[in-house]
Amino acid sequence: MAEQKIPYKIYLEESEMPKAWYNVRADMKNKPAPLLNPGTHQPMTAEELSVVFCDELVQQELDNTNAYIEIPQEIRDFYKMYRPSPLVRAYCLEKKLQTPAKIYYKFEGNNTSGSHKLNSAIAQAYYAKKQGLKGVTTETGAGQWGTALSMACSYFDLDCKVFMVKVSYEQKPFRREVMRTYGASVTPSPSETTEVGRRILAAHPGTTGSLGCAISEAVEVAVGTPGYRYVLGSVLNQVLLHQSVIGLETKAALDKYNIKPDIIIGCAGGGSNLGGLISPFMGEKLRGEADYRIIAVEPASCPSFTRGVYAYDFCDTGMVCPLAKMYTLGSDFIPSANHAGGLRYHGMSSVLSQLYDDGLMEATSVEQTSVFQAAEQFARVEGILPAPESSHAIRVAIDEAMKCKETGEEKTIVFGLTGTGYFDMVAYEKFHNGEMSDYIPTDEELAEARAKLPKV
Amino acid sequence: MAEQKIPYKIYLEESEMPKAWYNVRADMKNKPAPLLNPGTHQPMTAEELSVVFCDELVQQELDNTNAYIEIPQEIRDFYKMYRPSPLVRAYCLEKKLQTPAKIYYKFEGNNTSGSHKLNSAIAQAYYAKKQGLKGVTTETGAGQWGTALSMACSYFDLDCKVFMVKVSYEQKPFRREVMRTYGASVTPSPSETTEVGRRILAAHPGTTGSLGCAISEAVEVAVGTPGYRYVLGSVLNQVLLHQSVIGLETKAALDKYNIKPDIIIGCAGGGSNLGGLISPFMGEKLRGEADYRIIAVEPASCPSFTRGVYAYDFCDTGMVCPLAKMYTLGSDFIPSANHAGGLRYHGMSSVLSQLYDDGLMEATSVEQTSVFQAAEQFARVEGILPAPESSHAIRVAIDEAMKCKETGEEKTIVFGLTGTGYFDMVAYEKFHNGEMSDYIPTDEELAEARAKLPKV
Repeated sequence: MAEQKIPYKIYLEESEMPKAWYNVRADMKNKPAPLLNPGTHQPMTAEELSVVFCDELVQQELDNTNAYIEIPQEIRDFYKMYRPSPLVRAYCLEKKLQTPAKIYYKFEGNNTSGSHKLNSAIAQAYYAKKQGLKGVTTETGAGQWGTALSMACSYFDLDCKVFMVKVSYEQKPFRREVMRTYGASVTPSPSETTEVGRRILAAHPGTTGSLGCAISEAVEVAVGTPGYRYVLGSVLNQVLLHQSVIGLETKAALDKYNIKPDIIIGCAGGGSNLGGLISPFMGEKLRGEADYRIIAVEPASCPSFTRGVYAYDFCDTGMVCPLAKMYTLGSDFIPSANHAGGLRYHGMSSVLSQLYDDGLMEATSVEQTSVFQAAEQFARVEGILPAPESSHAIRVAIDEAMKCKETGEEKTIVFGLTGTGYFDMVAYEKFHNGEMSDYIPTDEELAEARAKLPKV
Repeated sequence: MAEQKIPYKIYLEESEMPKAWYNVRADMKNKPAPLLNPGTHQPMTAEELSVVFCDELVQQELDNTNAYIEIPQEIRDFYKMYRPSPLVRAYCLEKKLQTPAKIYYKFEGNNTSGSHKLNSAIAQAYYAKKQGLKGVTTETGAGQWGTALSMACSYFDLDCKVFMVKVSYEQKPFRREVMRTYGASVTPSPSETTEVGRRILAAHPGTTGSLGCAISEAVEVAVGTPGYRYVLGSVLNQVLLHQSVIGLETKAALDKYNIKPDIIIGCAGGGSNLGGLISPFMGEKLRGEADYRIIAVEPASCPSFTRGVYAYDFCDTGMVCPLAKMYTLGSDFIPSANHAGGLRYHGMSSVLSQLYDDGLMEATSVEQTSVFQAAEQFARVEGILPAPESSHAIRVAIDEAMKCKETGEEKTIVFGLTGTGYFDMVAYEKFHNGEMSDYIPTDEELAEARAKLPKV
């Protein structure tokens, strides 16, 4: 029988879209370590967490047993505005590389936030609205999460206060303007508007900010303002749960054509995209039903998996958040200023950290100049201008495809193309002008940040 | 029988995508007037045109008889990378407006060029490559066409020289950077690199440029450089032909659900999107098979349909191009500097001009503040951040839907959402800050520009 011709883009029908998120924790033998109260070092209770997070999201955060959690109809309706996202067969890239590998990418950039972040933003906004809240606070780095949350809050008519890492706020005024279009207020972080912001500014007057700082400020405002809660775009279990829609759609699309991937690749900052993309595949692996090579790709300038330690750490710089056990560089770690784009968080999702520690996935780090080379190569043949974050996955997908060219193996490679680079042209310009440099933190720098890990 | 539920997004299968473009001129009783040689005032011959344009495109330009022209396989393969584009049912907008109208939009922004322009760019690049050319030259205003052509040239490994209207070049450095990512060279126009550029700069030292200037420069370079031809992103018959893919897909998607639109709305600058969107519907209208209200929407600051004259005019400021009969404001007309976005060409496609003159379509003009109001309203409920150009159509679609609300009519409205506004955040910022103003040219200004029309 002739092989069925795979279209350039596999779209699911609306009726084939997932009706429940998949919770990979249910299938994990070694569960991710619980969040700890930073004072008592005891596991955070639902009651404690609900000061910061919406009630229903707290349940999702703590739920290690239910494999499927229904997606509320309102969220499914919103998903229909920009999902299903296409699973694209990279025919043109394959041809350019002259590789026997079959390359697919799940493209999450076809929405105004420009990334996969909207998948969790709309869920978190929905539960906040359902709880009768007035608004939410959050942080954003490269700006994708803040944009996504602004869109979600606008849809549900919620107030949205965004603390944006100062260096991004200054380098990306247009991101700020998109958030304003959706009605959000945007404050550069660290700011004078919070106690923790003033404290950080006093200690580091010239700081350009970090995600860790911005989280501290957003949490302070959420806890101190009646009718507000804090929401986060990555790292948390609940976020990986929502992002499982990426992997579920990917798997459903592959199943339609009886395609079984050999390698699954995703970029990893806090882990939201990677965790979502791999979840149903990891589930099969955990249940012994299938095997896959799963590769996390992180920047060499912020290498939490490949050079961090697996330990309890603060989630934020201001040390106001719960402690999470994760692969971490230390909450004081701030990537070099020459690092472009996101993927700059010091830690990694507790779920992914546990899976990595259990040897169920690999991790690798890549330098940004080679990432932008891959980005440009991809853009020129596949048309899409990728985000710097996503291009980490492109880099490794191309590398793996080139290995196949050497060995002649027809491996099937799937990677997550998380978003578009329209707001990253400053970085592209540096790359074009030969002004982009790479930076790998020294062992001494990493040891210094690590020395401040809490004693748990 | 219960009405079939219309999905949020209607996607065609790859196998349902058009295999031929539709040439509306074949069904026009009154054909569009031919291009004239500016010296002799005689119709341009194929030979004369082939100095400027690729041979096969000249044939398409002059073909008033063949209703269908096959889309070459290479172009169809490229189309598959970003097409079919979705026809979206604007459920959320309808709900927000509380209108009984059924609103659909054909969204052409889901590709890196951010607009429909890629549909013709890839066709023109293909024919240039087929002819064995080294490269092409063009102009770009807001930057959408230049980006699209850069992508297309990169795909076919052609050199691409873009003259970018100076004001856009300065206001949109990121657009320039996207073009560079695809390997194009970008020159602000008017420039010192061409004779016509130097002439224009001498006469108007402070000019911020216009499409008409940039066309003159691009044509001069194409004609003077062996192995190069000039390509244009709008206005020409060939461009409307390629853009018919928009309308053909729209009609196929509507037909799948037995939907018959009452009103079809498109923004109109040079006419490429509108001409493409309406072509198969206009064909039915011309053949007496169906009737539709068709509305062209143009900026009040550049009102060629609504306040121009139907006459032969220069296509460019330097007066080096053929004369075209069109609704025009005069080739000297430059929209007020406060006009944001594209749709700033002084004339209008000869095909659309003839159809308008024959009473087969309507035209209306809208002011930009109300356009941005519609854009923001749309963005907040439908998610997509629209381009300023596209938002002209949104404005009128909302207005028509609100009329339905008054009358209770359940009209079906289809409009073209040509692209995204990611590179237009300076304009959005002005709008948010209350710094956006409207400008309507005075009768005196229009009379002055009109006085310089050639005597034909």
